[in-house]
Amino acid sequence: MEKQLAKLTARLMEVDDLNRATAVLSWDQTTYMPPGGAAARGRQMATLSRLAHEKFTAAAIGKLLDALRPYEESLPYDSDEASLLRVTRREYEKLTKVPAAFVAKLNTHQAESYQAWTEARPANDFALVQPYLEKTLDLSRDLANFFPGYEHIADPLIDFSDYGMKVRTVRALFAELRSQLVPIVKAITSQPVADDACLKQAYPEAQQLAFGQSVIEKLGYDFKRGRQDKTHHPFCTKFSLGDVRITTRVQERDLTDALFSTIHESGHAMYEQGIQRDFEGTPLAGGTSSGVHESQSRCWENLVGRSRGFWQFFYPQLQTMFPDQLNAVSFETFYRAINKVTPSLIRTDADEVTYNLHVMIRFDLETALLEGTLAVRDLPEAWDARYQSDLGVRAPDNRDGVLQDVHWYAGQIGGVFQGYTLGNIMSAQFYEAALRAQPTIPYEIAQGKFDTLHGWLAENIYQHGSKFTANEVVERATGQPLTIAPYIRYLRTKYGELYQL
Amino acid sequence: MEKQLAKLTARLMEVDDLNRATAVLSWDQTTYMPPGGAAARGRQMATLSRLAHEKFTAAAIGKLLDALRPYEESLPYDSDEASLLRVTRREYEKLTKVPAAFVAKLNTHQAESYQAWTEARPANDFALVQPYLEKTLDLSRDLANFFPGYEHIADPLIDFSDYGMKVRTVRALFAELRSQLVPIVKAITSQPVADDACLKQAYPEAQQLAFGQSVIEKLGYDFKRGRQDKTHHPFCTKFSLGDVRITTRVQERDLTDALFSTIHESGHAMYEQGIQRDFEGTPLAGGTSSGVHESQSRCWENLVGRSRGFWQFFYPQLQTMFPDQLNAVSFETFYRAINKVTPSLIRTDADEVTYNLHVMIRFDLETALLEGTLAVRDLPEAWDARYQSDLGVRAPDNRDGVLQDVHWYAGQIGGVFQGYTLGNIMSAQFYEAALRAQPTIPYEIAQGKFDTLHGWLAENIYQHGSKFTANEVVERATGQPLTIAPYIRYLRTKYGELYQL
Repeated sequence: MEKQLAKLTARLMEVDDLNRATAVLSWDQTTYMPPGGAAARGRQMATLSRLAHEKFTAAAIGKLLDALRPYEESLPYDSDEASLLRVTRREYEKLTKVPAAFVAKLNTHQAESYQAWTEARPANDFALVQPYLEKTLDLSRDLANFFPGYEHIADPLIDFSDYGMKVRTVRALFAELRSQLVPIVKAITSQPVADDACLKQAYPEAQQLAFGQSVIEKLGYDFKRGRQDKTHHPFCTKFSLGDVRITTRVQERDLTDALFSTIHESGHAMYEQGIQRDFEGTPLAGGTSSGVHESQSRCWENLVGRSRGFWQFFYPQLQTMFPDQLNAVSFETFYRAINKVTPSLIRTDADEVTYNLHVMIRFDLETALLEGTLAVRDLPEAWDARYQSDLGVRAPDNRDGVLQDVHWYAGQIGGVFQGYTLGNIMSAQFYEAALRAQPTIPYEIAQGKFDTLHGWLAENIYQHGSKFTANEVVERATGQPLTIAPYIRYLRTKYGELYQL
Repeated sequence: MEKQLAKLTARLMEVDDLNRATAVLSWDQTTYMPPGGAAARGRQMATLSRLAHEKFTAAAIGKLLDALRPYEESLPYDSDEASLLRVTRREYEKLTKVPAAFVAKLNTHQAESYQAWTEARPANDFALVQPYLEKTLDLSRDLANFFPGYEHIADPLIDFSDYGMKVRTVRALFAELRSQLVPIVKAITSQPVADDACLKQAYPEAQQLAFGQSVIEKLGYDFKRGRQDKTHHPFCTKFSLGDVRITTRVQERDLTDALFSTIHESGHAMYEQGIQRDFEGTPLAGGTSSGVHESQSRCWENLVGRSRGFWQFFYPQLQTMFPDQLNAVSFETFYRAINKVTPSLIRTDADEVTYNLHVMIRFDLETALLEGTLAVRDLPEAWDARYQSDLGVRAPDNRDGVLQDVHWYAGQIGGVFQGYTLGNIMSAQFYEAALRAQPTIPYEIAQGKFDTLHGWLAENIYQHGSKFTANEVVERATGQPLTIAPYIRYLRTKYGELYQL
């Protein structure tokens, strides 16, 4: 059995090497690559992805998994080896259901559609992407239909990023969350909007970067096993468990854009950096779902990074870095500015209270598209109508409306947005559990100490990688199934104090 | 036939995608990678190289080449398609002679040996690398013996980098060059050494980089299809014909280190950037030999970059960039400083007159090692003896002696040094031919115009990539076989004027 397992692991490592190489090429493409490199780079990445897919779906892997099934069944469920076999088998069964020719067709279409979107968005031209989006919808349905027996056509698509979640469960969670959120938003927006002019002064790029890096180093991001570079759209990427990188962008006249995106990405990165090192090269060596991943980025960005305690420690340092801009700005003014709540048009700029309403709009619309109750040509109107009814705002054009997010245009329709809100919900549930176990965490944060929180997350979430599903991680770490209660408690407490709700 | 050719090209592109991906990983490894990434990176690069080797030596490629042989023979020798088939066949026959298991063993040994060298050099510990070097010598002999029928055991090894050259021809060229060089060196070193103190002031890094980049942009390096980053040991690398990058390092108290290495690497890069674009992804899309490659870097670095005319244009700009350091330094002082000739210990720091003596020592020693007339354990002594007799200097330790160059420790013994001097010889032969065709080149250089020279090189050398062998390129571009005469004329003229020889 050991020999079979070693054979399997060697094959998985080869696949991982190809996938990590693709990640390096992609990182370079969005950070340093000169324009002349674009055409060949697309081809190179397509070749590596194709080879990785071929090698992972090879019959030999299936045979090894079959041969190892009795061994797996002889081991405890939560042993590393059983988990490796279980997760590999799940991935194998998923990927072998999708024919290679379909994957190639989908990838080609996605690249073309993405290209069209990069032209359509600045030109405010939905008609340009409409035919691509219609084909994306068809292909997304085809993809779902490789997994017959689903309850809802979006379920197999959700499975790709949030394994084990279903439209039914997400809808129930979102409906409950919505019923609690709407009154909070209403209560806040009936009051004067917080003044965030202090954040909109000139903040030189080099100092913004230096401050952000000093912050995340304190949080626990390990620069010996990572680095930060500049890009257009910040992301986190992993080349190995010893090399997990983040990217950011800086706006001279917006202090918070780079800072909070840096903290956000460091949250993703600390998750990956914290995975058990001997999972390297296997399907266990990655975050377990898009929801759990987002819970880690949002925990550090919002629950920690926008808290009073955090800034009690960091605000004096920030003032030292930017004396001309901030010495005359009181702590309270600054704290209210970074927690300003106001309905807005753009998801990625939204505050933590209204953010989930943006996500719900997208989830409902993509689900309706898949069901066939909404046509792609009617999407812009449906988008605007939902923004009007849910947030009371209307985009002046499609650029800041239906064209704002890349997801549908570069990927698939269905299963691509729910993770953001699942992550918010989980972040509070995890944080509450961490505080139950380690009640000193908030006091430590106010002294710039993050080891206890970081340690709890590493112990309960990070180290496991993909060993457990999202639902298992939540239950194991918090003792109960996923629930919105902690998240609502968190929002009510924080914004109740800020707005005397 | 067209279908077969398309099949072959598709397979070659796949191999190229893997090789270019390896190049990206390697570039990242030496520019930006955090220390934690090292272990996995080595494995990833090994996997990609192995897959590229497997795919290039696949029997299917051999069958396609066989099927296409009649077609190739029906085409003119210098047609693109015939050349593609000829060069691919040559590479295929070479690589299929070496068993994959041997390649794996060699790669593993090379990585270990390199690692040992990185420790041995700072520790001045030849004994540490001696066993590795002995194994390298054995493996180099094994490698040569996969190509029986050679005249000299180093010939197959030379073929890897300078196809078509032999120990016999290299020895004859070097002996002739040596007999001409030694009196020139003697005549120069009997005079006072030029004063280069003006180059050893404090020159801030940012300005050094900016000046170097402005220079190579004028020479014709295309930053839209390339970029420059910092590293420890400067190199040029190619990710596609649209993305050819260079690297440099900066020493604050040495103006020339970054500057001339930047010009040198841009020479390599302009060669690759100038290759016919439709060779992309095939074995034709690369410089044809290490000698021709070096001729391009040395042409721009020395024949152009250390010429009077060049600095008549650039010195005023350099003074504007560094007024405190250079305003009081006369043109003549500066020009003599950058052309200072003096026997020294380190090849990479050597001036262009003594440089070739360093190369000849290495070539003779590695040839003797392969022949078995020199043992590895006697190498340090042999090294020191040759430096004493040829250059009149003796390294205080092995660090600046036999341990100074990475080549033997990271690669193979035999065939790795001759390209540097072949390149110097060729550079003058090409330059003389360019001036015959375009006599205005020197006057244009003195006005900061490089289009005519760049155009001649592109037309006669760059565009062909690997279509022609080094010997063919030399004959086609200059009308005669490789000869040292232009190089000697160049040195005599330039240094004759400087030292009144």
